[in-house]
Amino acid sequence: MPNSLISKEDHQFMKMACDLAIENHNRGGEPFGAVIVKNGQVIAAACNSVTLDNDPTAHAEINAIRCACRMTQNNKLDGCVVYSSCEPCPMCLSALYLAGVSRIYYANTSADAGNINFGGNFIYNEIKKPHLERSIPCIHMQDTDTIKSFNK
Amino acid sequence: MPNSLISKEDHQFMKMACDLAIENHNRGGEPFGAVIVKNGQVIAAACNSVTLDNDPTAHAEINAIRCACRMTQNNKLDGCVVYSSCEPCPMCLSALYLAGVSRIYYANTSADAGNINFGGNFIYNEIKKPHLERSIPCIHMQDTDTIKSFNK
Repeated sequence: MPNSLISKEDHQFMKMACDLAIENHNRGGEPFGAVIVKNGQVIAAACNSVTLDNDPTAHAEINAIRCACRMTQNNKLDGCVVYSSCEPCPMCLSALYLAGVSRIYYANTSADAGNINFGGNFIYNEIKKPHLERSIPCIHMQDTDTIKSFNK
Repeated sequence: MPNSLISKEDHQFMKMACDLAIENHNRGGEPFGAVIVKNGQVIAAACNSVTLDNDPTAHAEINAIRCACRMTQNNKLDGCVVYSSCEPCPMCLSALYLAGVSRIYYANTSADAGNINFGGNFIYNEIKKPHLERSIPCIHMQDTDTIKSFNK
């Protein structure tokens, strides 16, 4: 992405996300922050709180999505732009798809995060493998009648 | 996975997850349920609550992980086995990796869910694409100093 396509405002919002990451790191949290913007206004800003909240799903982007959805009373974030201090892991990327955001900007890469032992890249690689070759076996139980739950 | 490798207890726990899915569907929620088991005991059981809670991250597996972690006061679920009424979407699969569960069983498939317009398979396909070919652009801003947040 040529830098000419990234605006001054994009840099300002990214700086907010990055400052959140640095502040969280300085107080002993994980070094990740995210900001969600709608119509040029910040509607949510959050840090990673995995250890603080004993919640492995509490990545910065997930926390920001949940905050933005509480704010807007909607489970979709149409038209929203997300600024994350780090490339979203597959959990967060998928959540951003489920929320239907318009665009994602990130600063540090998954490889950078891998260098300090955060495992987004490992999971991206696992997801691409056949189920039974993954390090966590994912086993299909075929003889249930759960499909009934999908009937209208 | 040959059915001989799936125990009677596995079927009982899966039936609980499936019953949760069906009950949630019957009261107007999304048809997904999940159960987390540790040492043969159920430590969390949850339904999808996306529309109820206005939270796009509130899939059954995510809700169950968060419940189990609150219960155990730990952000890891080592030794836990997860029974989901449907194949986890990439958000939930990644969250189960982050939580470090031991094994995942599922009943309905992502293809079954796709047939009733739930988009796990779509996101699995998007994740495999180069960033700028995805339907949600994912843009690297290279000229930030966020890498500082990763310094020890």
